[in-house]
Amino acid sequence: MGARSLVFLLFLMLILSFSSAYQGKKKQYKPCKQMVLYFHDVIYNGQNAANATSAIVGAPQWGNLTILADKFHFGDVVVFDDPITLDNNFHSKPVGRAQGMYIYDTKNTFTAWLGFTFVLNSTDFQGTLNFMGADPIMVKTRDITVVSGTGDFFMHRGIATIMTDAFEGEVYFRLRVDIKLYECW
Amino acid sequence: MGARSLVFLLFLMLILSFSSAYQGKKKQYKPCKQMVLYFHDVIYNGQNAANATSAIVGAPQWGNLTILADKFHFGDVVVFDDPITLDNNFHSKPVGRAQGMYIYDTKNTFTAWLGFTFVLNSTDFQGTLNFMGADPIMVKTRDITVVSGTGDFFMHRGIATIMTDAFEGEVYFRLRVDIKLYECW
Amino acid sequence: MGARSLVFLLFLMLILSFSSAYQGKKKQYKPCKQMVLYFHDVIYNGQNAANATSAIVGAPQWGNLTILADKFHFGDVVVFDDPITLDNNFHSKPVGRAQGMYIYDTKNTFTAWLGFTFVLNSTDFQGTLNFMGADPIMVKTRDITVVSGTGDFFMHRGIATIMTDAFEGEVYFRLRVDIKLYECW
Repeated sequence: MGARSLVFLLFLMLILSFSSAYQGKKKQYKPCKQMVLYFHDVIYNGQNAANATSAIVGAPQWGNLTILADKFHFGDVVVFDDPITLDNNFHSKPVGRAQGMYIYDTKNTFTAWLGFTFVLNSTDFQGTLNFMGADPIMVKTRDITVVSGTGDFFMHRGIATIMTDAFEGEVYFRLRVDIKLYECW
Repeated sequence: MGARSLVFLLFLMLILSFSSAYQGKKKQYKPCKQMVLYFHDVIYNGQNAANATSAIVGAPQWGNLTILADKFHFGDVVVFDDPITLDNNFHSKPVGRAQGMYIYDTKNTFTAWLGFTFVLNSTDFQGTLNFMGADPIMVKTRDITVVSGTGDFFMHRGIATIMTDAFEGEVYFRLRVDIKLYECW
Repeated sequence: MGARSLVFLLFLMLILSFSSAYQGKKKQYKPCKQMVLYFHDVIYNGQNAANATSAIVGAPQWGNLTILADKFHFGDVVVFDDPITLDNNFHSKPVGRAQGMYIYDTKNTFTAWLGFTFVLNSTDFQGTLNFMGADPIMVKTRDITVVSGTGDFFMHRGIATIMTDAFEGEVYFRLRVDIKLYECW
């Protein structure tokens, strides 16, 4: 092998290393971390102060703070501090709390806008994950985003696929959250 | 060309490839995707229930839920579900909905804090983009951020330059949103 | 040095460059930018309209808009436009404004959910930083996230360690914010 062909090989490999590096950075579609969690929301209705985990704190002019408003709850702002569990049992030992708010934001169907944090404090995970996104509630599974994290989830980002796992009247619901992190540090 | 000079060349090129790779990762100032969209907000004033796309749902003690408050609307929280169009015509076929909230947050000028999602459902784009940022309304163009996305915008991030394209009384406004995505997956 | 050993060296260095590049991308734990700032919040209580920098704009059914609610203020939504200073002196010349909202979100201790922006306008920094996260107020230092930025902070991300630096009655508090940006463009 002569020096000339070696130089050629050198160029070839550098080009390959460039393109590989690029793909490694931009097309990583396999989650680097994944977990499934549930959270449980019991909304305050004026009579369940002891059990309620959330409360209506803003409402449109036609609404009030103990009953979700007409027009598909449009405009209701709900603050929550919901237990997170590993399975779908409300009475399981919580591994953390889901804290933040959701806002009903359509007048002709059920949709919500979500901004909240998972504060995880278990043997498996110590840290927080921050969620944001639109939730078209009537769709079976829908994607929101994990925009950031702290602790074990330092600088992480990803997608959370949420599913309404239970819905009882307008007082209790349970969400299944399938978290897939695609950027891990 | 001797082996020694080849080794030197090798080092030189690796150093160059390192610095190039670094710049490729960190200094990518050209958008990988770009689009211009408009959205239209008609605020509920107690008399336009049929047409309104947004409603005041929180207000300071001196405010109410059908008129934007004194002191530059400081403290007013507005929830919206606004049509998104490709041009500046309110009656154009929507390509999606802008859903979320804005909050007026200064007492001596007009500024807002924005947290919302573009839910896009057109032939060109299927997916969501999540926006967050401060909006100094009286400035002609101002930058907010695209913090995340789903679907066609999986894991995307970028900047949105917004401009008030129309403003009629305190009932209607239209925003032009120039979205530039700098991180595409 | 023969061509064969040179090829071997070539492979070795490429492998090394790969693994280094990977670590450079994923394990960058040193901040690329860091700064410490303070912001000051004076909440409206019905009598301090001239000085107040924030106001309660949403509250649960058992609350009101001039006094933080019972049950650890659960459900209170506060909108703010707070001065940012370089030191802990409320009267220092502001370098920007902290604008957004916080929500008290636990019934049995003090925690808040934060969504706000630092709008910086000083000789050192021109741009915005967007913050999001859960704030367990009673913990001495706690981490929230910097999810995005504009201007000098174009596309930046990081962590902010916050500390309650002063707390006077339920009218004034000051937060120390130690911002560490780990992704800089």
